[in-house]
Amino acid sequence: MSNIYGKNVRVSIFGESHGAGIGIVIDGVKPGTPVDMDRIAVQMARRAPGGSLATARREADQVEILSGILNGKAEGTPICGIIRNTDTRSSDYLKTAGLLRPSHADYTGHIRYKGFEDIRGGGHFSARITAPLMFAGALLRQALEAEGIRLGSHILQIHQVKERSFSQGDLTEQNLANLGAMRLPVLETAKEPLLQQEIEKARAAGDSVGGIVETAITGLPAGIGDPFFDSMESRLSQILFSVPAVKGVSFGSGFAFADMTGSEANDPFRLENGRIVTETNHNGGILGGITTGMPVVFQTVLKPTASISRPQRTVDIARMEEAEITVSGRHDPCIVVRAVPVLEACACIAVYDAMKEAQCL
Amino acid sequence: MSNIYGKNVRVSIFGESHGAGIGIVIDGVKPGTPVDMDRIAVQMARRAPGGSLATARREADQVEILSGILNGKAEGTPICGIIRNTDTRSSDYLKTAGLLRPSHADYTGHIRYKGFEDIRGGGHFSARITAPLMFAGALLRQALEAEGIRLGSHILQIHQVKERSFSQGDLTEQNLANLGAMRLPVLETAKEPLLQQEIEKARAAGDSVGGIVETAITGLPAGIGDPFFDSMESRLSQILFSVPAVKGVSFGSGFAFADMTGSEANDPFRLENGRIVTETNHNGGILGGITTGMPVVFQTVLKPTASISRPQRTVDIARMEEAEITVSGRHDPCIVVRAVPVLEACACIAVYDAMKEAQCL
Amino acid sequence: MSNIYGKNVRVSIFGESHGAGIGIVIDGVKPGTPVDMDRIAVQMARRAPGGSLATARREADQVEILSGILNGKAEGTPICGIIRNTDTRSSDYLKTAGLLRPSHADYTGHIRYKGFEDIRGGGHFSARITAPLMFAGALLRQALEAEGIRLGSHILQIHQVKERSFSQGDLTEQNLANLGAMRLPVLETAKEPLLQQEIEKARAAGDSVGGIVETAITGLPAGIGDPFFDSMESRLSQILFSVPAVKGVSFGSGFAFADMTGSEANDPFRLENGRIVTETNHNGGILGGITTGMPVVFQTVLKPTASISRPQRTVDIARMEEAEITVSGRHDPCIVVRAVPVLEACACIAVYDAMKEAQCL
Amino acid sequence: MSNIYGKNVRVSIFGESHGAGIGIVIDGVKPGTPVDMDRIAVQMARRAPGGSLATARREADQVEILSGILNGKAEGTPICGIIRNTDTRSSDYLKTAGLLRPSHADYTGHIRYKGFEDIRGGGHFSARITAPLMFAGALLRQALEAEGIRLGSHILQIHQVKERSFSQGDLTEQNLANLGAMRLPVLETAKEPLLQQEIEKARAAGDSVGGIVETAITGLPAGIGDPFFDSMESRLSQILFSVPAVKGVSFGSGFAFADMTGSEANDPFRLENGRIVTETNHNGGILGGITTGMPVVFQTVLKPTASISRPQRTVDIARMEEAEITVSGRHDPCIVVRAVPVLEACACIAVYDAMKEAQCL
Repeated sequence: MSNIYGKNVRVSIFGESHGAGIGIVIDGVKPGTPVDMDRIAVQMARRAPGGSLATARREADQVEILSGILNGKAEGTPICGIIRNTDTRSSDYLKTAGLLRPSHADYTGHIRYKGFEDIRGGGHFSARITAPLMFAGALLRQALEAEGIRLGSHILQIHQVKERSFSQGDLTEQNLANLGAMRLPVLETAKEPLLQQEIEKARAAGDSVGGIVETAITGLPAGIGDPFFDSMESRLSQILFSVPAVKGVSFGSGFAFADMTGSEANDPFRLENGRIVTETNHNGGILGGITTGMPVVFQTVLKPTASISRPQRTVDIARMEEAEITVSGRHDPCIVVRAVPVLEACACIAVYDAMKEAQCL
Repeated sequence: MSNIYGKNVRVSIFGESHGAGIGIVIDGVKPGTPVDMDRIAVQMARRAPGGSLATARREADQVEILSGILNGKAEGTPICGIIRNTDTRSSDYLKTAGLLRPSHADYTGHIRYKGFEDIRGGGHFSARITAPLMFAGALLRQALEAEGIRLGSHILQIHQVKERSFSQGDLTEQNLANLGAMRLPVLETAKEPLLQQEIEKARAAGDSVGGIVETAITGLPAGIGDPFFDSMESRLSQILFSVPAVKGVSFGSGFAFADMTGSEANDPFRLENGRIVTETNHNGGILGGITTGMPVVFQTVLKPTASISRPQRTVDIARMEEAEITVSGRHDPCIVVRAVPVLEACACIAVYDAMKEAQCL
Repeated sequence: MSNIYGKNVRVSIFGESHGAGIGIVIDGVKPGTPVDMDRIAVQMARRAPGGSLATARREADQVEILSGILNGKAEGTPICGIIRNTDTRSSDYLKTAGLLRPSHADYTGHIRYKGFEDIRGGGHFSARITAPLMFAGALLRQALEAEGIRLGSHILQIHQVKERSFSQGDLTEQNLANLGAMRLPVLETAKEPLLQQEIEKARAAGDSVGGIVETAITGLPAGIGDPFFDSMESRLSQILFSVPAVKGVSFGSGFAFADMTGSEANDPFRLENGRIVTETNHNGGILGGITTGMPVVFQTVLKPTASISRPQRTVDIARMEEAEITVSGRHDPCIVVRAVPVLEACACIAVYDAMKEAQCL
Repeated sequence: MSNIYGKNVRVSIFGESHGAGIGIVIDGVKPGTPVDMDRIAVQMARRAPGGSLATARREADQVEILSGILNGKAEGTPICGIIRNTDTRSSDYLKTAGLLRPSHADYTGHIRYKGFEDIRGGGHFSARITAPLMFAGALLRQALEAEGIRLGSHILQIHQVKERSFSQGDLTEQNLANLGAMRLPVLETAKEPLLQQEIEKARAAGDSVGGIVETAITGLPAGIGDPFFDSMESRLSQILFSVPAVKGVSFGSGFAFADMTGSEANDPFRLENGRIVTETNHNGGILGGITTGMPVVFQTVLKPTASISRPQRTVDIARMEEAEITVSGRHDPCIVVRAVPVLEACACIAVYDAMKEAQCL
């Protein structure tokens, strides 16, 4: 069982890619929270497929609200939003039934669900199931924004193109808003065409590429989160690792901490307008699992899209024979671009949950 | 609130470094599970301080069992193990009361607990609280070993010394056992003195160094774990990020996935003695959040020990003035070494929980 | 927050009486569990309004499956079933907006949800929200029946008409099936017209009546449940008290234990065909929170329907003035009859959860 | 698994009657909450055995604090309190090993824990394990009292002696305090010697008697609790049913609702000093699972003490033969008296949890 996240706000997701519909139940939203469906639609559009960089599958991703919202405000009761599955080409998948797609969950899903799983479109494992997560995150994001909290992400790396990490100067409200409006969000605008080339190159080669997203959350008060199992790192990583293709999460200087000494890595405290801040932010805004009041910064690595059109060796589990597979269907050559808003949505859910626990919401 | 981990086995930790005692309650251990206290002591000794590479604080870390174990077997009821705090030099800490130690949880703990926290020895944030986690992990490890599951780790990096990642040939039962017996577990034995030099150099300089640990879990059946919020990555990262100083967790090829193409990163399936395996294991034994039956491999980065004896700039929160701090007391110049068994213990808890949910225990 | 029940199977309910729809997500159903929608419809029809004894509101209560079921079998992923709200006469309620209906949740809901709740038809507090619970319970009931578990209930009391409690001889599979098919399930058939008279009398008087339902669960193995907070009594009462109008739950001899001595109340053990059974079953099949293998028997009291057509004194919360209210709309004069299958559905959810935890499912 | 209760404050109990010790971990207490150990001792003394009405086993029930309290205040971190087991006469129990004590958990515990349970003194099923619950409840009670919340109970019935239910006039702060100081708390003082006679009669006859306790909680604000699975009734009943011997819980008019009509049972709203109150309180201060601001009133039935000295028929599970058992050892002829403070402690835990969720703490 795995469909529920959170303690103070709880999201329950459901759905298969080619079933009747997908959706989410969100419980614990404060009564009276404004819910602007247009702003939610803007966020969801960031994840929606379209454009030459993404899959050609058109999804309306129209969320229908079944409960919990009245006159544009959360009632405080569980909010259920559903999305109908319409544009599904199940035949793309049934052709290859039995052939395990490498790096997909076909094999592990088959064992876990004992052969009763819906394999069409990846079923419950489909990245499409992140659309309801987007909905929940976008809804909660509005409540966080009302508290002065902002989120933004840029693409730190796709294949061989890398750009610099966030510096503190990057994290203005305006900059974060700008990143949110870019199709390929980057700090160094010269990198944008290079990233696009990497993706196009992969598509042309029938291949795919992975990458790293860096996300910042500003405006969080100090004192949110807990030591141990509910550390902000634990809370964020638990939900980030539920996004398909995520294989690593790090905070602040992340894996670069391994190269550092304490005298380089420690963030000196100082006073700024009577407020305690840190000079540097190597710890990514979290000490002892609890926010420092500095921006929370984290990196998420996504593996290359598992679906590639090149022939691959595999096993036909129906016949228990080795075989070759060519994955057809419509696939993003680089999941990183569409993952950006999903990772932010996940962060919104985790932060809302922690903020409410701390009675800051 | 943050002291409870797990659904099918649940651990509840408690304690402050310089309070009366620390401990853990473990609920959900199968009745009749053999508990060999000597083998637990062997595991706990791996974390215990001692030797020139670690802090000079001697801790007996004698676990007293209050409940749940009878005649060397788990009763099935909650097991409570406690450890008395004895060798505490609280005066070391009270001298610097008010001075926020950089990169420690002094500031965030103060805000979170509103000034009522015990600051002596880091209080509830002390790495000492991982001793009860070690106990729980070592206890559950025995049950996992009875199922043929083995764990082992090596130090992938400390500061400027790096060694190669696990290859599949490394993951024999014998090799993993050998790693468990080494003070500085490495695959390339020539690296051992170099690692030691890095640590000694940091100590001599009144500084500290960070590093990366790579851990493998072998013998896990396929089909353990879940998609989304209870993915094996989510389960493991949630508990790993509760270990003080951990700032990043990755699986399989981890952050190197960003450099790869799908054709390089995908793990082809093949048959081996009628069993489905993967040719490579870039995904670290997990697809769609569920085990493949291949070894689960993950990397954990630890930041340099926050306590360094060099003077650092900080704030005196009692006076709200900027100040300088020199952290005295006994500290490891590199927490990586002692973290190795703690990370394994955390993995044992997460794996036991997932195995029991899958009714494999 | 309150919309999630269970640990090993988890149900998440949502919906308001006059919103777009109501529903439930069920996670943790074993993959491959047969789901017979016709048998579910039979159970749901037991709760559906209709007939002179119940409200005239016609609800199709057609459950649409959005996810989790494929080819008549549970996939093992979350099952979402939704029911559209169609036949709603919101105007019945808006007339009395501001007037707090006595014994309803109008006032407490208003405080709890700070005025943002949907008051039409009782909103989230409506007994209509038990329809999704019926769906979940009926679905899980099929899995329990496959294990030889049966449930049945009779009406122990409505107002001044009482009948005898279950005796062990009553609890045959046939008798329980017969009770399930009766509109007014009774052991003493002579009581059926008397019960009907009580209800009709209340309706004619513009009043309502309460009552007690007794439910038995047979075929449960011994050893299910736990001491303390997950005792079978705790598990069952938690979910039974979530049914609107339930104000008391007791097990076995229940409140009659107060009149008994230990020598009368204790259930002697004896052997029956090599199996340990108890001579009597005063403890209702549960000792120390764990099933004995004897039938689990419990009683649930429901208060009289709060909606009565007689004028009542109340407060107009909009004007903060005392006022008189006459509750119009369509209401059951006795909720007991329609509650019977809901209580059984709740029991099915609780028992499935406990059975799965004990790895009996 | 069953040892954890609560979401916003979480208690984890552990221990066996004749093991090394018993105890509890309490997480989620607000930092800075005063903890007066003397007042806790007063509460715990109410449960402690002693006097002719209770068992002769003397327990110091000295709670040792291991963590979470500093200078008489909660730190906000997990509080662990332990109690050593000292005065244990295990031989009393080993004599009868294999003989299942009727109405005890010997048989169900044996099945549930597969024979690995500690049978001495009832092991984990012992009523002694309620001492840590008393500690937790007494600690949280202080925080509730600081908010103006008061609890009190009286004995509604023991065997054939009954007294009247609480009327609203009984629920003054002074009256509740007086009840807390009485060994046999009653509203009608003339009943006190009669209750004592009932208990003495049972003891003289080698028998035991059951009874009913009625508890009131005053000073709760309106709006606490939730509909459905976290209704105040669900929250309270879940923890009350974890007290050994409890077999029924009801609220307000409880099972008497079955005899009532809606016009009798409904509580009219009215204004009192500008505050909305109800004229009567048949609903026991809870509507729709949420507090009304009126006193919460509930009744708890306890079965007669299972241990009686009369010979009883049973089964010897070691030999799988029918047998006779005479339960020796020290036992209360009526558990009702000592249960009173335990039920109140449970209520304190449930109320603290709900109050904190509502951000009233």
